[in-house]
Amino acid sequence: MHRIAVIPGDGIGPEVIEQALLVLDKISSKFGIKFDYIFIDAGGCAIDKYGVPIRDEDLELVKKCEATLLGAVGGPKWDNLPGNLRPEQALLKLRGGLKVYANLRPAVLYDELKDSSPLKREIVSKGIDILVVRELIGGMYFGPKGREIRNGEEVAYDTEIYSVSEIERIAKVAFEAAKKRRKKVTSVDKANILESSRLWREVVSRVAKDYPDIELNHMYVDNASMQLVKDPSQFDVILTSNMFGDILSDEASMIVGSIGMLASASLGEGSIGLYEPIHGTAPDIAGQDLANPVATILSAAMMLRYSFNMEDAAKAIENAVKIALKEGYRTRDIYTENCKLVGTKQMGKIICENI
Amino acid sequence: MHRIAVIPGDGIGPEVIEQALLVLDKISSKFGIKFDYIFIDAGGCAIDKYGVPIRDEDLELVKKCEATLLGAVGGPKWDNLPGNLRPEQALLKLRGGLKVYANLRPAVLYDELKDSSPLKREIVSKGIDILVVRELIGGMYFGPKGREIRNGEEVAYDTEIYSVSEIERIAKVAFEAAKKRRKKVTSVDKANILESSRLWREVVSRVAKDYPDIELNHMYVDNASMQLVKDPSQFDVILTSNMFGDILSDEASMIVGSIGMLASASLGEGSIGLYEPIHGTAPDIAGQDLANPVATILSAAMMLRYSFNMEDAAKAIENAVKIALKEGYRTRDIYTENCKLVGTKQMGKIICENI
Ligand SMILES: CC(C)[C@H](C(=O)O)[C@@H](O)C(=O)O
Ligand SMILES: CC(C)[C@H](C(=O)O)[C@@H](O)C(=O)O
Repeated sequence: MHRIAVIPGDGIGPEVIEQALLVLDKISSKFGIKFDYIFIDAGGCAIDKYGVPIRDEDLELVKKCEATLLGAVGGPKWDNLPGNLRPEQALLKLRGGLKVYANLRPAVLYDELKDSSPLKREIVSKGIDILVVRELIGGMYFGPKGREIRNGEEVAYDTEIYSVSEIERIAKVAFEAAKKRRKKVTSVDKANILESSRLWREVVSRVAKDYPDIELNHMYVDNASMQLVKDPSQFDVILTSNMFGDILSDEASMIVGSIGMLASASLGEGSIGLYEPIHGTAPDIAGQDLANPVATILSAAMMLRYSFNMEDAAKAIENAVKIALKEGYRTRDIYTENCKLVGTKQMGKIICENI
Repeated sequence: MHRIAVIPGDGIGPEVIEQALLVLDKISSKFGIKFDYIFIDAGGCAIDKYGVPIRDEDLELVKKCEATLLGAVGGPKWDNLPGNLRPEQALLKLRGGLKVYANLRPAVLYDELKDSSPLKREIVSKGIDILVVRELIGGMYFGPKGREIRNGEEVAYDTEIYSVSEIERIAKVAFEAAKKRRKKVTSVDKANILESSRLWREVVSRVAKDYPDIELNHMYVDNASMQLVKDPSQFDVILTSNMFGDILSDEASMIVGSIGMLASASLGEGSIGLYEPIHGTAPDIAGQDLANPVATILSAAMMLRYSFNMEDAAKAIENAVKIALKEGYRTRDIYTENCKLVGTKQMGKIICENI
C-alpha cells in the first residue's frame, strides 16, 4: 500500500485532481496495488479555512506520506495578502519541507498537437523533447530577503545564493537524466554577470567529468530564452537555477503548445516526491468542466515512476493519454479543427478506459 | 557640433560601427550638422591592448561626450577570465559610469520580415511592436555579490536590490514612453516570491496614478515569457528589472525575426545616452562582411532622436532602412527566398543612398 498526500488546491485544482485519482483507481485495480489518499488543504482554500497557506500539522502529515500529488494553488482573491500569507507560500513550504531540490519539467511536443504550437511548422517538425531540470529549494526563492530603510529611503532585496553542494546534487540529477535520454546537458546561467552563476558553471563542469558520455554546454540565460524559440530541437536536458528555471520552463511549455499537457516531478533524496501539473489555477475556467486534466494525470504517472518504481503502470497511463489524443479527443485548450471537443470529466474517463 | 564617443568593440562590432558612421556622415552633410568622433577601445580589444576592459581615463573621456555609440563587446577568447577582467565589465562600467538607468529596447516586426519570425503567421499577422523598458544600473547586476566559505563550503551570491527612487525613475520612463505609443504598460516582476518585486509593484502602481490615461497591468515574469510567444501583440510597453529585462528583451527580439535589426538606447538624466545594437559580437561571422549593420544604424538614429533632439534626421534613417527592406535587400540573417542578398558594406551603402 502506498500512502499519497493529495492536495487539490484552488481554481481548477480540485477538478483535475479528481480525474487523476480516477486514473490512479484504475491503475490500482489493474495492477493490484492499493493507494491510500490523505487529503490536505493548502493554498488559498487553506487561507480561507485556517488563515494560513498550509498548517504546520498538515505539512507534517504530508512529510509522512510517500509522495504528494498537487493540483494548483493561488488566485487573484489572495494576491494582495502580505508575502508570508500568500497561497504560493504553501508551495514553498512543501518544496522546502520535503527537501525536493530537483524539479523535472518535461516539455514534449505530441505529434497530434503540432498545430497547437505557436511556432512555425518548419521549427516544430524537428521535434521538441526537452527536460528542464530546475533547482527548486535554493537561489532567490529561499535566500535572505527583506525590506528596510537605507539612506533614508525604502529598499527591498532578495539574494540569489548557491553553495557547491547544492549545485552538485542538482547537476548530478541532470546528468543522470541525460544518460537515459539524448546525452546532452545545456547548463543555463548568467556567468558573465553573476558570481553565483560563475560558481554554478565551475561546479557543473566539474560534475560533468564523471559523465564523459554526456555532452555539456553552457549557455547564458538571455540567449537560452531566444534559442528556445528559434530552435528548440537543439535542447535535450536544460539544467538551471530556481529563478531561471521558472522562466525557461514556462517558455518551454508554451512552445510545445499547451501547458495543460505538462507534468512535473520534484524529487529529493530517496523516493519522496511532489508531483504537480505545470499550469496554474486558471480561475477564469474553474468549476466549468473545461480544464485539461492531462497534466495532472501525467504527474500521477511520474509519481508511479519515480516514487513507487512502477514503470509499467506509468507507461500505461502515458500510453492511454496518447491513445486519447490519437483518437482525436481534445479539451478546449488543445482543440483544433476536426477534433472531438470534450470536457475535463470526459477526458479523464476516456483515459481511464484506455488503461 | 556634437561630440560622440565611438566604441567599435569586438567581433562584428567594428564592421557594423563603420556602416553606422557612414550613415551619420550622410546625415551630417544632409542636415548641415557636424559630428566629432572620439574612438575608444573597450571590451576584449582593450583587455588585449591594456589589460583592462576599459581604462579609467577612457571612461572619463566617454563621460565628456554627449553620446556614445557602441558596437558590441566580448567573445569566447575572453570568456575564462575572472569576473572583473571580462569584456562585459566594460559595458557595466559604461552603463554605471554614464548613469544610464533606462534601457529602451524596441522590438518591432517589419512587414517585410514577417517570414523571418519563428512564430506562426496567425500570431505575427496581428503585428508586434513592443518597447521593453529595462532598468539598467540596478538589481542583481550591481547589487552586493561575492564568494565565500560558509559552514565549511564555498557559496556564491548576488543581490537583487531596488530602492523606491530607482523604481520610480524607471517607471516614469515607461509611462512617458507609453503616452506616445498605445498607452499600455505591462510591468513584469515576480511579486509572488521576491520582496524586491513586491516593492517594485507598489511603486509602479503609485507612479501609475500620475498617468491616468495609461493602462497598467502587472504580470509575473514566468507568465510574461510564455505570453511573448503566445500572443506578443498584447504588449505595448514592458517595464521590468535589469535581470528580467535582459531575458525578456532577448526573447522579444527573437520573436520579431532577427536581432540583427534591433537597436537600443540607454538613457539617464538630461540628454546623455549610450546607443548600441541588441546583438552580440557574433565571432563566427566577424570580418567576413556578413553582419547586419541595421541594428547599429538604427541605434545611431535613436542617438539623433534622444541625445541630439534631431527627430527629422532620425526619421530619415529609419525611413531609409524601410526602403532598403522594401526594395528586397537582405543580409544573410534576414534573407528569405527571392530577396537580394547583400553584405554588411552594401547594406550600409544602400541605406546611405536612401537618405
Ligand atoms: C506559483 C509560483 C510560486 C511557482 C514558482 O515560481 O515556482 C510557479 O510559477 C512554478 O513554476 O511552480
Ligand atoms: C553582455 C551582457 C553583460 C549584457 C547584459 O546582460 O546586460 C547583454 O546581454 C545585454 O543585454 O546588453
